[in-house]
Amino acid sequence: MPKTVLTQIDQYYFHYPSGATIVTSQAGGKANAMAVAWHVAMSHHPPYYLVSISPKRHTHSLVMESGEFVVNFMPQEMGELVAAVAACSGKDVDKFAALRIASCPGSQVAVPVLQEAFASYECRVVSRHTYGDHDLFMGEIVAVQYEPSAFNERLLLDLDKQHPILYMGADYYSSAGPSVYLDREKLFKSARAL
Amino acid sequence: MPKTVLTQIDQYYFHYPSGATIVTSQAGGKANAMAVAWHVAMSHHPPYYLVSISPKRHTHSLVMESGEFVVNFMPQEMGELVAAVAACSGKDVDKFAALRIASCPGSQVAVPVLQEAFASYECRVVSRHTYGDHDLFMGEIVAVQYEPSAFNERLLLDLDKQHPILYMGADYYSSAGPSVYLDREKLFKSARAL
Repeated sequence: MPKTVLTQIDQYYFHYPSGATIVTSQAGGKANAMAVAWHVAMSHHPPYYLVSISPKRHTHSLVMESGEFVVNFMPQEMGELVAAVAACSGKDVDKFAALRIASCPGSQVAVPVLQEAFASYECRVVSRHTYGDHDLFMGEIVAVQYEPSAFNERLLLDLDKQHPILYMGADYYSSAGPSVYLDREKLFKSARAL
Repeated sequence: MPKTVLTQIDQYYFHYPSGATIVTSQAGGKANAMAVAWHVAMSHHPPYYLVSISPKRHTHSLVMESGEFVVNFMPQEMGELVAAVAACSGKDVDKFAALRIASCPGSQVAVPVLQEAFASYECRVVSRHTYGDHDLFMGEIVAVQYEPSAFNERLLLDLDKQHPILYMGADYYSSAGPSVYLDREKLFKSARAL
């Protein structure tokens, strides 16, 4: 079937899965939790991780004030919590109390780390830049907290034990299926030899 | 089980799934394809999408020269191609020829769009910024090409028909499982009422 081509792009949509994380923040004794699908790694040395957050969001003002945030990677079982977190604003409600979100203190930042996350990156903001209608907060990962049973000895996520939740747009979610091993070198060599 | 806390982070690892895309580029009549897991949306208005690319990569020099790139979202069935693309550099080999990658022309950019992608974003670079050991290329999405049968009427990916490939680190991949509907408003209201 021929592809459809759109050149009038009124609004960016989700055409692919992305990890449904909860970004936590804290300033002046008030903490917040926000569902964030726009997050990505940026650098190995130093380890940088970025989140894209609209200035309209309550989390934006907390991160501006404290210069810290935590990216919490959530399992499939916590899908209902992720969805509930996405349905409300920290301006109106204390989400930690209203949704009974279990957390423990950050080790290097004064931001709560979610108990149910299989991995959390504690980040300190190294720069901020406005791109379009969102702000990019570049964070240096100052600590990683992870659930040891969810990972194998190479620190790769064990998909037999842990099913990370994915965001698909609107009210739709999914999760990562079983692990597939693809020997990259071998595949390249055999494809080339054909 | 208590969590493990790492504060010496020598290198950034993959603790979570991310979409295994192929980023295509072209300059001076030479095209390249690169496996990229570090990509994310940044803004709705205007529609911005970013990729994080090391200056060591061949793709980096092509994007620097042309100011264009395309992010191709790949299905599970193309996993072996994604892995083979990741195993070699465009400095050494013409990947389109060696791996017989099927492509069609971009509609707004002079970069090939992959035939087997279920969606592709044609991007024009609006800015570049160095963060750590990678460069962030911020692209404005000037066209979206997508396979209409892979999407529902709301332009959300139909996971009954299309299984996007995910990257899990090293030689490990996965794909998105079935779609789960979570009514966010309802979940928030019922969690709060407890």
